[in-house]
Amino acid sequence: MSKTLTVALVQDRDRGSVDANLKRIESCLAQAHDAGASLVLLQELHNGPYFCQTQDVNQFDRAETIPGPGTERLCAAARRYGLVVVASLFERRAPGLYHNTAVVIERDGAIVGRYRKMHIPDDPGFMEKFYFTPGDLGFKPIDTSAGRLGVLVCWDQWYPEAARLMALAGAEILLYPTAIGWDPRDDDAERCRQQSAWQISQRGHAVANGLPVLSCNRTGFEADPADGAGIQFWGTSFVAGPQGEILAQAGIENDEVLVATVDLSRSEAVRRIWPFLRDRRIDAYGDLTRRYVD
Amino acid sequence: MSKTLTVALVQDRDRGSVDANLKRIESCLAQAHDAGASLVLLQELHNGPYFCQTQDVNQFDRAETIPGPGTERLCAAARRYGLVVVASLFERRAPGLYHNTAVVIERDGAIVGRYRKMHIPDDPGFMEKFYFTPGDLGFKPIDTSAGRLGVLVCWDQWYPEAARLMALAGAEILLYPTAIGWDPRDDDAERCRQQSAWQISQRGHAVANGLPVLSCNRTGFEADPADGAGIQFWGTSFVAGPQGEILAQAGIENDEVLVATVDLSRSEAVRRIWPFLRDRRIDAYGDLTRRYVD
Repeated sequence: MSKTLTVALVQDRDRGSVDANLKRIESCLAQAHDAGASLVLLQELHNGPYFCQTQDVNQFDRAETIPGPGTERLCAAARRYGLVVVASLFERRAPGLYHNTAVVIERDGAIVGRYRKMHIPDDPGFMEKFYFTPGDLGFKPIDTSAGRLGVLVCWDQWYPEAARLMALAGAEILLYPTAIGWDPRDDDAERCRQQSAWQISQRGHAVANGLPVLSCNRTGFEADPADGAGIQFWGTSFVAGPQGEILAQAGIENDEVLVATVDLSRSEAVRRIWPFLRDRRIDAYGDLTRRYVD
Repeated sequence: MSKTLTVALVQDRDRGSVDANLKRIESCLAQAHDAGASLVLLQELHNGPYFCQTQDVNQFDRAETIPGPGTERLCAAARRYGLVVVASLFERRAPGLYHNTAVVIERDGAIVGRYRKMHIPDDPGFMEKFYFTPGDLGFKPIDTSAGRLGVLVCWDQWYPEAARLMALAGAEILLYPTAIGWDPRDDDAERCRQQSAWQISQRGHAVANGLPVLSCNRTGFEADPADGAGIQFWGTSFVAGPQGEILAQAGIENDEVLVATVDLSRSEAVRRIWPFLRDRRIDAYGDLTRRYVD
Protein backbone atom coordinates (compact mmCIF):
# COMPACT_ATOMS: atom_id res chain seq x y z
CA MET A 1 0.00 0.00 0.00
CA SER A 2 1.86 3.07 -1.18
CA LYS A 3 1.36 6.53 0.29
CA THR A 4 2.89 8.95 -2.17
CA LEU A 5 3.53 12.61 -1.65
CA THR A 6 4.65 15.08 -4.28
CA VAL A 7 6.99 17.68 -2.88
CA ALA A 8 8.53 20.85 -4.30
CA LEU A 9 11.70 22.63 -3.21
CA VAL A 10 12.10 26.30 -4.15
CA GLN A 11 15.80 26.95 -4.76
CA ASP A 12 16.43 30.61 -5.41
CA ARG A 13 18.86 33.54 -5.26
CA ASP A 14 18.21 36.73 -3.32
CA ARG A 15 16.17 39.11 -5.47
CA GLY A 16 17.07 42.33 -3.63
CA SER A 17 13.99 43.05 -1.52
CA VAL A 18 11.51 41.28 0.70
CA ASP A 19 8.74 42.06 -1.74
CA ALA A 20 10.67 40.75 -4.74
CA ASN A 21 11.55 37.55 -2.88
CA LEU A 22 7.99 36.95 -1.73
CA LYS A 23 6.63 37.67 -5.23
CA ARG A 24 8.99 35.08 -6.61
CA ILE A 25 7.99 32.58 -3.91
CA GLU A 26 4.30 33.16 -4.65
CA SER A 27 4.94 32.45 -8.30
CA CYS A 28 6.90 29.29 -7.39
CA LEU A 29 4.06 28.11 -5.15
CA ALA A 30 1.75 28.44 -8.15
CA GLN A 31 4.22 26.32 -10.16
CA ALA A 32 4.40 23.76 -7.36
CA HIS A 33 0.62 23.56 -7.28
CA ASP A 34 0.47 23.08 -11.05
CA ALA A 35 3.04 20.30 -10.74
CA GLY A 36 0.80 18.46 -8.27
CA ALA A 37 2.81 19.14 -5.12
CA SER A 38 1.20 18.96 -1.66
CA LEU A 39 4.23 20.11 0.31
CA VAL A 40 6.67 22.94 -0.47
CA LEU A 41 10.00 23.56 1.22
CA LEU A 42 11.60 27.01 0.96
CA GLN A 43 15.27 27.80 1.49
CA GLU A 44 16.68 29.30 4.68
CA LEU A 45 15.94 33.00 5.28
CA HIS A 46 14.31 33.27 1.86
CA ASN A 47 13.01 36.82 2.37
CA GLY A 48 16.40 38.46 1.97
CA PRO A 49 20.10 38.01 1.46
CA TYR A 50 22.05 35.77 3.80
CA PHE A 51 22.93 38.69 6.08
CA CYS A 52 25.20 36.85 8.52
CA GLN A 53 28.49 37.42 6.69
CA THR A 54 29.16 40.34 9.03
CA GLN A 55 28.01 41.52 12.46
CA ASP A 56 25.82 44.56 11.93
CA VAL A 57 23.16 45.66 14.43
CA ASN A 58 21.09 47.21 11.67
CA GLN A 59 20.43 43.76 10.24
CA PHE A 60 18.11 43.08 13.15
CA ASP A 61 15.63 45.38 11.36
CA ARG A 62 15.04 42.43 9.03
CA ALA A 63 13.49 40.39 11.84
CA GLU A 64 9.73 40.06 12.09
CA THR A 65 7.18 38.57 14.44
CA ILE A 66 5.49 35.25 13.77
CA PRO A 67 2.70 35.71 12.87
CA GLY A 68 3.68 38.89 11.08
CA PRO A 69 3.89 40.45 7.63
CA GLY A 70 5.93 37.57 6.13
CA THR A 71 3.64 34.82 7.32
CA GLU A 72 0.60 36.84 6.30
CA ARG A 73 1.63 36.68 2.64
CA LEU A 74 2.88 33.11 2.87
CA CYS A 75 -0.28 31.90 4.62
CA ALA A 76 -2.42 33.56 1.97
CA ALA A 77 -0.42 31.87 -0.79
CA ALA A 78 -0.52 28.48 0.98
CA ARG A 79 -4.30 28.77 1.18
CA ARG A 80 -4.63 29.99 -2.40
CA TYR A 81 -2.71 27.01 -3.77
CA GLY A 82 -3.73 24.43 -1.15
CA LEU A 83 -0.14 23.70 -0.15
CA VAL A 84 1.61 22.84 3.08
CA VAL A 85 4.51 25.33 3.13
CA VAL A 86 7.67 25.14 5.24
CA ALA A 87 9.06 28.68 5.41
CA SER A 88 12.17 30.10 7.07
CA LEU A 89 12.12 33.48 8.79
CA PHE A 90 14.23 35.73 10.99
CA GLU A 91 11.96 35.76 14.03
CA ARG A 92 11.71 38.78 16.33
CA ARG A 93 10.51 37.23 19.56
CA ALA A 94 11.17 40.24 21.80
CA PRO A 95 13.37 43.32 21.58
CA GLY A 96 16.90 41.90 21.59
CA LEU A 97 15.73 38.28 21.27
CA TYR A 98 15.76 36.78 17.78
CA HIS A 99 15.67 33.28 16.30
CA ASN A 100 16.26 31.54 13.00
CA THR A 101 12.83 29.96 12.74
CA ALA A 102 11.09 27.58 10.38
CA VAL A 103 7.33 28.03 10.17
CA VAL A 104 4.94 25.34 9.02
CA ILE A 105 1.77 26.54 7.29
CA GLU A 106 -1.18 24.26 6.51
CA ARG A 107 -2.90 24.25 3.14
CA ASP A 108 -5.77 26.17 4.74
CA GLY A 109 -3.35 28.98 5.55
CA ALA A 110 -3.07 28.32 9.29
CA ILE A 111 0.28 28.37 11.06
CA VAL A 112 0.48 24.91 12.65
CA GLY A 113 3.94 24.93 14.15
CA ARG A 114 7.40 26.38 14.27
CA TYR A 115 10.91 25.10 14.81
CA ARG A 116 13.64 27.35 16.17
CA LYS A 117 17.07 26.39 14.86
CA MET A 118 18.77 24.53 17.68
CA HIS A 119 22.39 24.33 16.45
CA ILE A 120 23.81 27.76 15.64
CA PRO A 121 27.04 28.04 13.62
CA ASP A 122 29.61 30.77 13.90
CA ASP A 123 32.42 30.75 11.39
CA PRO A 124 33.96 33.26 9.01
CA GLY A 125 31.11 34.24 6.67
CA PHE A 126 28.46 32.62 8.87
CA MET A 127 28.34 34.71 12.06
CA GLU A 128 25.03 33.37 13.25
CA LYS A 129 25.70 33.35 16.97
CA PHE A 130 25.54 37.14 16.84
CA TYR A 131 22.05 37.11 15.36
CA PHE A 132 20.25 33.97 16.49
CA THR A 133 19.46 32.84 20.00
CA PRO A 134 19.65 29.04 20.06
CA GLY A 135 16.23 27.43 19.76
CA ASP A 136 14.32 26.46 22.89
CA LEU A 137 11.55 24.34 21.40
CA GLY A 138 13.56 21.14 21.12
CA PHE A 139 13.27 18.60 18.32
CA LYS A 140 9.52 18.17 17.86
CA PRO A 141 7.92 17.12 14.59
CA ILE A 142 4.93 19.09 13.34
CA ASP A 143 1.76 17.35 12.20
CA THR A 144 0.32 18.44 8.85
CA SER A 145 -1.96 17.07 6.15
CA ALA A 146 1.24 16.16 4.27
CA GLY A 147 2.60 14.06 7.14
CA ARG A 148 4.46 14.53 10.39
CA LEU A 149 7.31 16.84 9.48
CA GLY A 150 10.74 16.76 11.14
CA VAL A 151 11.76 20.31 10.29
CA LEU A 152 15.37 21.26 11.02
CA VAL A 153 17.48 24.14 9.73
CA CYS A 154 20.87 24.31 7.99
CA TRP A 155 23.63 23.72 10.60
CA ASP A 156 21.37 21.05 12.16
CA GLN A 157 22.05 19.02 9.03
CA TRP A 158 25.49 18.10 10.39
CA TYR A 159 24.07 16.61 13.59
CA PRO A 160 22.87 13.00 13.56
CA GLU A 161 21.39 13.67 17.00
CA ALA A 162 18.87 16.13 15.59
CA ALA A 163 17.69 13.78 12.86
CA ARG A 164 17.48 10.87 15.30
CA LEU A 165 15.44 12.83 17.83
CA MET A 166 12.99 13.83 15.12
CA ALA A 167 12.73 10.20 13.99
CA LEU A 168 12.22 8.97 17.55
CA ALA A 169 9.40 11.48 17.93
CA GLY A 170 7.69 10.04 14.87
CA ALA A 171 8.78 12.31 12.02
CA GLU A 172 7.88 10.88 8.60
CA ILE A 173 10.10 13.24 6.61
CA LEU A 174 13.21 15.25 7.50
CA LEU A 175 13.30 18.76 5.99
CA TYR A 176 16.19 21.21 5.91
CA PRO A 177 15.90 24.80 4.70
CA THR A 178 19.55 25.76 4.26
CA ALA A 179 21.98 28.39 2.99
CA ILE A 180 25.40 26.96 2.39
CA GLY A 181 28.05 27.80 -0.13
CA TRP A 182 31.66 28.00 -1.03
CA ASP A 183 34.33 30.41 0.02
CA PRO A 184 35.56 31.47 -3.45
CA ARG A 185 39.12 31.29 -2.17
CA ASP A 186 38.94 27.52 -1.68
CA ASP A 187 40.31 25.32 -4.45
CA ASP A 188 38.19 22.92 -6.47
CA ALA A 189 39.17 19.86 -4.44
CA GLU A 190 38.12 21.49 -1.18
CA ARG A 191 34.86 22.71 -2.72
CA CYS A 192 34.10 19.22 -3.95
CA ARG A 193 34.80 17.69 -0.52
CA GLN A 194 32.61 20.22 1.24
CA GLN A 195 29.62 19.88 -1.05
CA SER A 196 29.91 16.11 -1.04
CA ALA A 197 30.19 16.01 2.76
CA TRP A 198 27.10 18.20 3.05
CA GLN A 199 25.06 15.83 0.96
CA ILE A 200 26.49 12.67 2.52
CA SER A 201 25.73 13.92 6.00
CA GLN A 202 22.04 14.42 5.17
CA ARG A 203 21.74 11.23 3.11
CA GLY A 204 23.27 9.52 6.13
CA HIS A 205 20.40 10.80 8.27
CA ALA A 206 17.98 9.29 5.74
CA VAL A 207 19.76 5.94 6.01
CA ALA A 208 20.14 5.90 9.79
CA ASN A 209 16.47 6.69 10.30
CA GLY A 210 14.81 5.12 7.26
CA LEU A 211 13.26 8.46 6.32
CA PRO A 212 13.13 10.63 3.21
CA VAL A 213 15.13 13.86 3.40
CA LEU A 214 14.34 17.16 1.67
CA SER A 215 17.08 19.77 1.61
CA CYS A 216 16.46 23.16 -0.01
CA ASN A 217 19.53 25.35 -0.48
CA ARG A 218 20.11 28.89 -1.71
CA THR A 219 21.92 29.65 -4.97
CA GLY A 220 23.74 32.68 -6.36
CA PHE A 221 26.75 34.72 -5.22
CA GLU A 222 26.38 37.18 -2.35
CA ALA A 223 29.15 39.68 -1.71
CA ASP A 224 30.47 40.32 1.78
CA PRO A 225 29.47 43.86 2.85
CA ALA A 226 32.80 44.04 4.73
CA ASP A 227 34.74 43.30 1.53
CA GLY A 228 35.45 39.69 2.42
CA ALA A 229 35.38 37.00 -0.22
CA GLY A 230 31.59 36.55 -0.24
CA ILE A 231 29.73 33.27 -0.57
CA GLN A 232 28.93 31.29 -3.69
CA PHE A 233 25.85 29.34 -2.57
CA TRP A 234 26.03 25.90 -4.10
CA GLY A 235 22.37 25.10 -4.73
CA THR A 236 22.03 21.35 -5.45
CA SER A 237 18.89 21.10 -3.35
CA PHE A 238 17.86 17.47 -3.26
CA VAL A 239 15.29 14.89 -2.28
CA ALA A 240 16.53 11.54 -0.95
CA GLY A 241 14.57 8.38 -0.17
CA PRO A 242 14.79 6.32 3.03
CA GLN A 243 17.88 4.44 1.91
CA GLY A 244 19.61 7.74 1.17
CA GLU A 245 19.05 7.31 -2.57
CA ILE A 246 18.80 10.55 -4.55
CA LEU A 247 15.33 10.99 -6.06
CA ALA A 248 15.84 14.47 -7.48
CA GLN A 249 18.57 17.11 -7.41
CA ALA A 250 18.73 20.74 -8.56
CA GLY A 251 21.62 22.40 -10.35
CA ILE A 252 24.30 24.53 -8.72
CA GLU A 253 23.31 27.89 -10.23
CA ASN A 254 19.67 27.38 -11.22
CA ASP A 255 16.65 29.20 -9.82
CA GLU A 256 14.54 26.10 -9.70
CA VAL A 257 11.36 24.52 -8.42
CA LEU A 258 12.51 20.95 -7.84
CA VAL A 259 9.61 18.50 -7.85
CA ALA A 260 9.76 14.88 -6.70
CA THR A 261 7.36 12.20 -5.59
CA VAL A 262 8.18 10.38 -2.37
CA ASP A 263 6.56 7.10 -1.31
CA LEU A 264 6.20 7.44 2.45
CA SER A 265 5.24 3.78 2.83
CA ARG A 266 8.78 2.79 1.84
CA SER A 267 10.03 3.93 5.25
CA GLU A 268 8.35 1.05 7.01
CA ALA A 269 9.47 -1.40 4.32
CA VAL A 270 13.07 -0.21 4.70
CA ARG A 271 12.89 -0.28 8.49
CA ARG A 272 11.73 -3.90 8.30
CA ILE A 273 14.84 -5.03 6.44
CA TRP A 274 17.09 -2.64 8.39
CA PRO A 275 15.52 -2.47 11.86
CA PHE A 276 17.99 -0.01 13.33
CA LEU A 277 15.48 1.39 15.80
CA ARG A 278 15.04 -2.09 17.30
CA ASP A 279 18.70 -2.50 18.21
CA ARG A 280 19.74 0.89 19.60
CA ARG A 281 21.80 0.42 22.78
CA ILE A 282 19.95 3.00 24.82
CA ASP A 283 21.53 1.50 27.96
CA ALA A 284 24.93 2.64 26.66
CA TYR A 285 24.13 6.03 25.12
CA GLY A 286 24.20 8.13 28.28
CA ASP A 287 27.42 9.92 27.35
CA LEU A 288 25.75 11.48 24.30
CA THR A 289 24.58 14.23 26.63
CA ARG A 290 28.16 15.05 27.64
CA ARG A 291 30.26 17.70 25.93
CA TYR A 292 33.26 15.35 25.78
CA VAL A 293 34.17 12.17 27.59
CA ASP A 294 37.44 13.05 29.28
CA MET B 1 52.37 19.62 10.99
CA SER B 2 51.12 16.46 9.36
CA LYS B 3 50.88 13.15 11.17
CA THR B 4 50.52 10.52 8.52
CA LEU B 5 49.64 6.90 9.03
CA THR B 6 49.72 4.20 6.39
CA VAL B 7 46.94 1.67 6.86
CA ALA B 8 46.10 -1.63 5.20
CA LEU B 9 42.73 -3.39 4.98
CA VAL B 10 42.72 -7.13 4.28
CA GLN B 11 39.62 -7.89 2.21
CA ASP B 12 39.27 -11.61 1.65
CA ARG B 13 36.95 -14.55 0.99
CA ASP B 14 36.66 -17.55 3.31
CA ARG B 15 39.36 -20.08 2.46
CA GLY B 16 37.71 -23.12 4.01
CA SER B 17 39.59 -23.60 7.28
CA VAL B 18 40.91 -21.60 10.19
CA ASP B 19 44.43 -22.54 9.24
CA ALA B 20 43.99 -21.52 5.60
CA ASN B 21 42.45 -18.20 6.62
CA LEU B 22 45.20 -17.43 9.13
CA LYS B 23 47.91 -18.41 6.63
CA ARG B 24 46.41 -16.00 4.15
CA ILE B 25 46.21 -13.27 6.79
CA GLU B 26 49.85 -13.83 7.76
CA SER B 27 50.84 -13.45 4.14
CA CYS B 28 48.75 -10.27 3.84
CA LEU B 29 50.38 -8.84 6.97
CA ALA B 30 53.74 -9.38 5.29
CA GLN B 31 52.42 -7.49 2.25
CA ALA B 32 51.08 -4.70 4.45
CA HIS B 33 54.48 -4.43 6.13
CA ASP B 34 56.23 -4.27 2.78
CA ALA B 35 53.83 -1.51 1.71
CA GLY B 36 54.84 0.57 4.73
CA ALA B 37 51.67 0.12 6.77
CA SER B 38 51.62 0.62 10.55
CA LEU B 39 48.02 -0.42 11.12
CA VAL B 40 46.10 -3.34 9.62
CA LEU B 41 42.36 -3.90 9.78
CA LEU B 42 40.97 -7.37 9.14
CA GLN B 43 37.40 -8.18 8.13
CA GLU B 44 34.74 -9.44 10.52
CA LEU B 45 35.08 -13.07 11.70
CA HIS B 46 38.00 -13.60 9.35
CA ASN B 47 38.91 -17.05 10.67
CA GLY B 48 36.00 -18.78 8.99
CA PRO B 49 32.87 -18.46 6.90
CA TYR B 50 30.14 -16.07 7.98
CA PHE B 51 28.33 -18.79 9.92
CA CYS B 52 25.25 -16.79 10.97
CA GLN B 53 23.07 -17.58 7.96
CA THR B 54 21.39 -20.31 10.02
CA GLN B 55 20.96 -21.15 13.70
CA ASP B 56 23.11 -24.19 14.43
CA VAL B 57 24.40 -24.99 17.92
CA ASN B 58 27.44 -26.74 16.44
CA GLN B 59 28.72 -23.41 15.14
CA PHE B 60 29.57 -22.43 18.71
CA ASP B 61 32.52 -24.83 18.35
CA ARG B 62 34.12 -22.09 16.25
CA ALA B 63 34.35 -19.79 19.27
CA GLU B 64 37.65 -19.35 21.07
CA THR B 65 38.96 -17.63 24.15
CA ILE B 66 40.84 -14.34 24.00
CA PRO B 67 43.73 -14.81 24.42
CA GLY B 68 43.56 -18.14 22.65
CA PRO B 69 44.81 -20.00 19.60
CA GLY B 70 43.68 -17.32 17.13
CA THR B 71 45.27 -14.42 18.94
CA GLU B 72 48.43 -16.48 19.50
CA ARG B 73 49.08 -16.65 15.76
CA LEU B 74 47.91 -13.09 15.11
CA CYS B 75 50.03 -11.68 17.93
CA ALA B 76 53.07 -13.51 16.61
CA ALA B 77 52.47 -12.12 13.13
CA ALA B 78 51.86 -8.59 14.47
CA ARG B 79 55.20 -8.78 16.31
CA ARG B 80 57.00 -10.31 13.33
CA TYR B 81 55.92 -7.49 11.02
CA GLY B 82 55.76 -4.68 13.58
CA LEU B 83 52.10 -3.93 12.89
CA VAL B 84 49.16 -2.84 14.98
CA VAL B 85 46.47 -5.37 14.00
CA VAL B 86 42.71 -5.06 14.51
CA ALA B 87 41.31 -8.58 14.39
CA SER B 88 37.76 -9.93 14.65
CA LEU B 89 37.03 -13.15 16.52
CA PHE B 90 34.13 -15.25 17.79
CA GLU B 91 34.87 -14.95 21.49
CA ARG B 92 34.07 -17.76 23.93
CA ARG B 93 33.80 -15.91 27.22
CA ALA B 94 32.19 -18.71 29.22
CA PRO B 95 30.25 -21.86 28.34
CA GLY B 96 27.09 -20.54 26.69
CA LEU B 97 28.32 -16.93 26.60
CA TYR B 98 29.82 -15.73 23.33
CA HIS B 99 30.59 -12.37 21.73
CA ASN B 100 31.51 -10.93 18.37
CA THR B 101 34.74 -9.31 19.47
CA ALA B 102 37.37 -7.12 17.87
CA VAL B 103 40.85 -7.50 19.33
CA VAL B 104 43.56 -4.87 19.10
CA ILE B 105 47.13 -6.15 19.00
CA GLU B 106 50.17 -3.90 19.37
CA ARG B 107 53.18 -4.14 17.09
CA ASP B 108 55.06 -5.86 19.91
CA GLY B 109 52.47 -8.64 19.84
CA ALA B 110 50.62 -7.66 23.03
CA ILE B 111 46.83 -7.62 23.19
CA VAL B 112 46.04 -4.05 24.24
CA GLY B 113 42.26 -4.01 24.10
CA ARG B 114 39.07 -5.52 22.85
CA TYR B 115 35.68 -4.25 21.72
CA ARG B 116 32.60 -6.45 21.98
CA LYS B 117 30.08 -5.66 19.24
CA MET B 118 27.36 -3.60 20.89
CA HIS B 119 24.63 -3.59 18.21
CA ILE B 120 23.62 -7.10 17.17
CA PRO B 121 21.56 -7.62 14.00
CA ASP B 122 19.06 -10.37 13.38
CA ASP B 123 17.60 -10.61 9.93
CA PRO B 124 17.18 -13.36 7.34
CA GLY B 125 20.75 -14.47 6.53
CA PHE B 126 22.23 -12.61 9.51
CA MET B 127 20.94 -14.42 12.61
CA GLU B 128 23.44 -12.92 14.98
CA LYS B 129 21.24 -12.60 18.04
CA PHE B 130 21.38 -16.39 18.32
CA TYR B 131 25.16 -16.39 18.48
CA PHE B 132 26.36 -13.14 19.99
CA THR B 133 25.59 -11.70 23.40
CA PRO B 134 25.46 -7.90 23.04
CA GLY B 135 28.70 -6.26 24.09
CA ASP B 136 29.10 -4.99 27.64
CA LEU B 137 32.28 -2.95 27.31
CA GLY B 138 30.65 0.17 25.91
CA PHE B 139 32.17 2.47 23.31
CA LYS B 140 35.76 2.93 24.47
CA PRO B 141 38.62 3.73 22.12
CA ILE B 142 41.82 1.72 22.45
CA ASP B 143 45.21 3.41 22.63
CA THR B 144 47.92 2.07 20.33
CA SER B 145 51.17 3.23 18.77
CA ALA B 146 49.10 3.93 15.61
CA GLY B 147 46.70 6.23 17.45
CA ARG B 148 43.61 6.00 19.62
CA LEU B 149 41.37 3.57 17.76
CA GLY B 150 37.58 3.72 17.79
CA VAL B 151 36.95 0.09 16.88
CA LEU B 152 33.35 -0.85 16.08
CA VAL B 153 31.94 -3.89 14.26
CA CYS B 154 29.61 -4.27 11.24
CA TRP B 155 26.01 -3.50 12.37
CA ASP B 156 27.44 -0.68 14.51
CA GLN B 157 28.20 1.07 11.21
CA TRP B 158 24.53 2.03 10.90
CA TYR B 159 24.47 3.81 14.27
CA PRO B 160 25.63 7.45 14.43
CA GLU B 161 25.47 7.10 18.22
CA ALA B 162 28.32 4.57 18.24
CA ALA B 163 30.60 6.71 16.09
CA ARG B 164 29.80 9.82 18.10
CA LEU B 165 30.51 8.13 21.43
CA MET B 166 33.88 6.95 20.14
CA ALA B 167 34.66 10.47 18.92
CA LEU B 168 33.63 12.01 22.23
CA ALA B 169 35.96 9.59 23.99
CA GLY B 170 38.85 10.80 21.86
CA ALA B 171 39.04 8.28 19.02
CA GLU B 172 41.35 9.41 16.22
CA ILE B 173 40.15 6.84 13.68
CA LEU B 174 36.93 4.87 13.32
CA LEU B 175 37.42 1.23 12.23
CA TYR B 176 34.79 -1.27 11.12
CA PRO B 177 35.52 -4.95 10.48
CA THR B 178 32.39 -6.02 8.60
CA ALA B 179 30.70 -8.81 6.64
CA ILE B 180 27.88 -7.49 4.51
CA GLY B 181 26.56 -8.59 1.17
CA TRP B 182 23.66 -8.96 -1.17
CA ASP B 183 20.76 -11.33 -1.16
CA PRO B 184 21.14 -12.71 -4.70
CA ARG B 185 17.36 -12.48 -5.12
CA ASP B 186 17.39 -8.68 -4.91
CA ASP B 187 17.39 -6.75 -8.17
CA ASP B 188 20.20 -4.48 -9.29
CA ALA B 189 18.50 -1.27 -8.14
CA GLU B 190 18.01 -2.60 -4.61
CA ARG B 191 21.61 -3.87 -4.51
CA CYS B 192 22.86 -0.50 -5.58
CA ARG B 193 20.80 1.31 -2.94
CA GLN B 194 21.98 -1.04 -0.20
CA GLN B 195 25.66 -0.82 -1.01
CA SER B 196 25.47 2.93 -1.44
CA ALA B 197 23.59 3.37 1.86
CA TRP B 198 26.21 1.26 3.62
CA GLN B 199 29.01 3.49 2.40
CA ILE B 200 27.11 6.74 2.92
CA SER B 201 26.29 5.81 6.50
CA GLN B 202 29.96 5.31 7.35
CA ARG B 203 31.17 8.31 5.36
CA GLY B 204 28.52 10.25 7.28
CA HIS B 205 30.19 9.22 10.54
CA ALA B 206 33.48 10.55 9.16
CA VAL B 207 31.82 13.88 8.36
CA ALA B 208 29.86 14.23 11.60
CA ASN B 209 32.94 13.57 13.69
CA GLY B 210 35.76 14.89 11.54
CA LEU B 211 37.50 11.53 11.65
CA PRO B 212 38.93 9.10 9.10
CA VAL B 213 36.98 5.86 8.70
CA LEU B 214 38.37 2.44 7.78
CA SER B 215 35.86 -0.22 6.77
CA CYS B 216 37.05 -3.72 5.88
CA ASN B 217 34.45 -6.02 4.31
CA ARG B 218 34.38 -9.66 3.26
CA THR B 219 34.14 -10.74 -0.38
CA GLY B 220 33.02 -13.90 -2.18
CA PHE B 221 29.81 -15.90 -2.24
CA GLU B 222 28.86 -18.10 0.72
CA ALA B 223 26.04 -20.59 0.31
CA ASP B 224 23.34 -20.96 2.95
CA PRO B 225 23.74 -24.37 4.64
CA ALA B 226 19.94 -24.46 4.93
CA ASP B 227 19.57 -24.05 1.15
CA GLY B 228 18.59 -20.40 1.34
CA ALA B 229 19.83 -17.92 -1.26
CA GLY B 230 23.26 -17.39 0.31
CA ILE B 231 25.14 -14.12 0.54
CA GLN B 232 27.24 -12.40 -2.10
CA PHE B 233 29.56 -10.29 0.06
CA TRP B 234 30.12 -6.99 -1.69
CA GLY B 235 33.71 -6.18 -0.75
CA THR B 236 34.41 -2.51 -1.58
CA SER B 237 36.32 -2.01 1.63
CA PHE B 238 37.30 1.63 1.84
CA VAL B 239 39.25 4.34 3.60
CA ALA B 240 37.62 7.76 3.98
CA GLY B 241 39.11 11.02 5.24
CA PRO B 242 37.58 13.34 7.87
CA GLN B 243 35.29 15.05 5.35
CA GLY B 244 33.99 11.67 4.24
CA GLU B 245 36.10 11.78 1.09
CA ILE B 246 37.12 8.39 -0.32
CA LEU B 247 40.90 7.90 -0.14
CA ALA B 248 40.98 4.28 -1.35
CA GLN B 249 38.46 1.61 -2.21
CA ALA B 250 38.74 -2.10 -3.01
CA GLY B 251 36.84 -3.96 -5.71
CA ILE B 252 33.69 -6.00 -5.21
CA GLU B 253 35.16 -9.44 -5.85
CA ASN B 254 38.87 -8.95 -5.24
CA ASP B 255 40.96 -10.58 -2.53
CA GLU B 256 42.90 -7.46 -1.78
CA VAL B 257 45.25 -5.70 0.60
CA LEU B 258 44.01 -2.13 0.30
CA VAL B 259 46.68 0.38 1.34
CA ALA B 260 46.11 4.08 1.99
CA THR B 261 47.86 6.90 3.79
CA VAL B 262 45.78 8.97 6.18
CA ASP B 263 46.86 12.35 7.54
CA LEU B 264 45.57 12.34 11.12
CA SER B 265 46.34 16.03 11.54
CA ARG B 266 43.57 16.85 9.05
CA SER B 267 40.97 16.00 11.68
CA GLU B 268 41.79 19.05 13.74
CA ALA B 269 41.97 21.23 10.61
CA VAL B 270 38.53 20.03 9.51
CA ARG B 271 37.07 20.42 12.99
CA ARG B 272 38.29 24.03 13.02
CA ILE B 273 36.29 24.93 9.92
CA TRP B 274 33.37 22.68 10.91
CA PRO B 275 33.29 22.83 14.71
CA PHE B 276 30.38 20.46 15.19
CA LEU B 277 31.57 19.34 18.62
CA ARG B 278 31.39 22.94 19.85
CA ASP B 279 27.72 23.36 19.07
CA ARG B 280 26.11 20.08 20.17
CA ARG B 281 22.90 20.81 22.12
CA ILE B 282 23.63 18.44 24.96
CA ASP B 283 20.90 20.17 26.97
CA ALA B 284 18.34 18.86 24.45
CA TYR B 285 19.68 15.35 23.71
CA GLY B 286 18.20 13.54 26.69
CA ASP B 287 15.66 11.61 24.64
CA LEU B 288 18.46 9.83 22.76
CA THR B 289 18.46 7.31 25.58
CA ARG B 290 14.78 6.51 25.02
CA ARG B 291 13.55 3.69 22.80
CA TYR B 292 10.97 5.95 21.19
CA VAL B 293 9.42 9.26 22.15
CA ASP B 294 5.73 8.47 22.32
